Amino acid sequence: MSNPTLLILPGDGIGPEVMAEVQRVIDWFGARRGLKFDVSEDLVGGAAYDVHGVPLADATMARAQEVDAVLLGAVGGPKYDVLDFSVKPERGLLRLRKEMDLYANLRPAQCFDALADFSSLKKDVVAGLDIMIVRELTSGVYFGQPRGITTQADGSRVGINTQHYTTEEIRRVARSAFELAKRRNNKVCSMEKANVMESGILWREEVQWVHDNEYPEVELSHMYADNGAMQLVRWPKQFDVIVTDNLFGDILSDCAAMLTGSLGMLPSASLGAPMENGRPKAMYEPVHGSAPDIAGQGKANPIACILSFAMALRYSFDQGDEAMRLEKAIEKVLADGVRTADLMGPEGGTPVSTSGMGDAILAAL
Amino acid sequence: MSNPTLLILPGDGIGPEVMAEVQRVIDWFGARRGLKFDVSEDLVGGAAYDVHGVPLADATMARAQEVDAVLLGAVGGPKYDVLDFSVKPERGLLRLRKEMDLYANLRPAQCFDALADFSSLKKDVVAGLDIMIVRELTSGVYFGQPRGITTQADGSRVGINTQHYTTEEIRRVARSAFELAKRRNNKVCSMEKANVMESGILWREEVQWVHDNEYPEVELSHMYADNGAMQLVRWPKQFDVIVTDNLFGDILSDCAAMLTGSLGMLPSASLGAPMENGRPKAMYEPVHGSAPDIAGQGKANPIACILSFAMALRYSFDQGDEAMRLEKAIEKVLADGVRTADLMGPEGGTPVSTSGMGDAILAAL
Ligand SMILES: CC(C)[C@H](C(=O)O)[C@@H](O)C(=O)O
Ligand SMILES: CC(C)[C@H](C(=O)O)[C@@H](O)C(=O)O
Repeated sequence: MSNPTLLILPGDGIGPEVMAEVQRVIDWFGARRGLKFDVSEDLVGGAAYDVHGVPLADATMARAQEVDAVLLGAVGGPKYDVLDFSVKPERGLLRLRKEMDLYANLRPAQCFDALADFSSLKKDVVAGLDIMIVRELTSGVYFGQPRGITTQADGSRVGINTQHYTTEEIRRVARSAFELAKRRNNKVCSMEKANVMESGILWREEVQWVHDNEYPEVELSHMYADNGAMQLVRWPKQFDVIVTDNLFGDILSDCAAMLTGSLGMLPSASLGAPMENGRPKAMYEPVHGSAPDIAGQGKANPIACILSFAMALRYSFDQGDEAMRLEKAIEKVLADGVRTADLMGPEGGTPVSTSGMGDAILAAL
Repeated sequence: MSNPTLLILPGDGIGPEVMAEVQRVIDWFGARRGLKFDVSEDLVGGAAYDVHGVPLADATMARAQEVDAVLLGAVGGPKYDVLDFSVKPERGLLRLRKEMDLYANLRPAQCFDALADFSSLKKDVVAGLDIMIVRELTSGVYFGQPRGITTQADGSRVGINTQHYTTEEIRRVARSAFELAKRRNNKVCSMEKANVMESGILWREEVQWVHDNEYPEVELSHMYADNGAMQLVRWPKQFDVIVTDNLFGDILSDCAAMLTGSLGMLPSASLGAPMENGRPKAMYEPVHGSAPDIAGQGKANPIACILSFAMALRYSFDQGDEAMRLEKAIEKVLADGVRTADLMGPEGGTPVSTSGMGDAILAAL
């Protein structure tokens, strides 16, 4: 049987640096655990624009459709701020999500014990926090038509975007959330603004339908998204799995990520329907951005990106034990006080560079 | 000259209780400071639905258009959850905002010294926090057309809402934000998702236009709303005035409110264009909701609603000194350890009921 295939898209800013450490981890699993991958690499975001004039070349898109999993670093940077909307680095990322139909974006918000002091929240509020946000990723206001800016006769302009959801779009991501909850603490909280938006009413009703018909044993609650933001700040441990739409998910998952104080540590998985080989279409990426201010200086923390590979092991390759091995190695490194600059707190630790963190993780493995 | 007019709409849940204390404060200003108001009272939300079958009667709407300021308590409750979207309590509130054209919603997020320990955030992150969120309140996805749920031939459904902004809608709320910043710390941060939404691009460009042409002396920055949520959690004191659209404003202002740990303390003002007498169309309401779980028990904290009246004194009646008098009285009461149930922390204090808090504030005045 041929090896599973990976497409690595390091992207912009700190993307290439952190991805280099992931590559070493991949090599380690091949050499030491017999988990061999066929890895190819390509461009996305500003890096693709610089070469191809578009943030994702068609050939790269085609390759992404073929592989078993895509690993993405980060996209964007000030250099590209002046570009037209249609070729901005973000469009490359959005094209991948849309054309691979990666509808379920899994964003764990976990607080690492060794880092609980880093949160701006009180330690008891976040210590041990482990919630999973499931964000719908291929529809809603990100992709709805009509959209655009039009100029009126008097020179004034109108900007329009459309929030658009169908029964099936809601049900399938709801199923992802319920499935996850079953393997966690069996609780799903769905968030929308059904008090203001009809699309929110549909969201609430369809999530309820999936619950009642397919997952009656999972505990389901509904919350308005504004209250959701409050509750995340007030007492995030009340949640297990949160399911919400593309735009609310963007904001609420970033809010939740920051609660943990572990932003440089948080991975994500974007999953679609099963392919012929049974594996889901999948892309894995860190939650953090391209951090242009520290790019190229060996300061970036590669852990979020490495944990994204751990998610790939779990969700694409059914290697939950190997994923756990990798996660445990990272926990050990943190407990040992190994720290990239972003993790360096008042209690000190052993300062390391991006590759130094890679070294430590490989050693712990 | 006739007295300025107020319309009081206590609404649902704890609305009537907290508004009763506001009424006492209004009376005090009439008797002791010669600030007399002609006050009328009417129904809104579920209370209006119970009597009229709609959450805001036309006569009430007409009265709201005539008065100098509306004071609103809160709307909504579980009893009304089953109602059709078109007559839900929230629609009464949204109708007031829309028909009075109250485009600028001012939501101060202030952390009261005596209450800094209540925040789930670390004390140094929130102590002394004083930011002002200016939320656009009459447009965007709350009101955009087309909207609704349609059923397809195969029985599946589609839910749609439209994010819609015009040049003028953006410019006028931007002006409100810049004006406020001039009287504060001279900094405005505008938040949108211009990397994903064309309406966000328009938002960014029009806010920049108002800055460059009318307020070049105010410091302006732009931030994506997801990063905004993160930055609010990470280090909220970096902000002075934040200006954002209706939906982002709903979520971000609730997030900011919860940061302060003073949810029962936060007022808001919703302002429109100047009327003939020079006063802006205006409605004042607490940020907290109707809290049906504690309604009718004398447990509610009336301070947010009383501080909303202080905002009325400042923004509708040009009585900044009297507003400050009221705010100082409240600070004193808090410093003296007078506490409604929601404010009672481990360090104790003098427990009081809703009206007991009113008594203490009147005494401090
Ligand atoms: C980069 C941007 C287009 C993207 C989004 O808005 O989805 C990012 O914020 C994210 O959350 O992955
Ligand atoms: C009650 C609801 C309609 C309202 C809103 O979404 O605007 C509330 O959340 C608010 O922020 O005032």
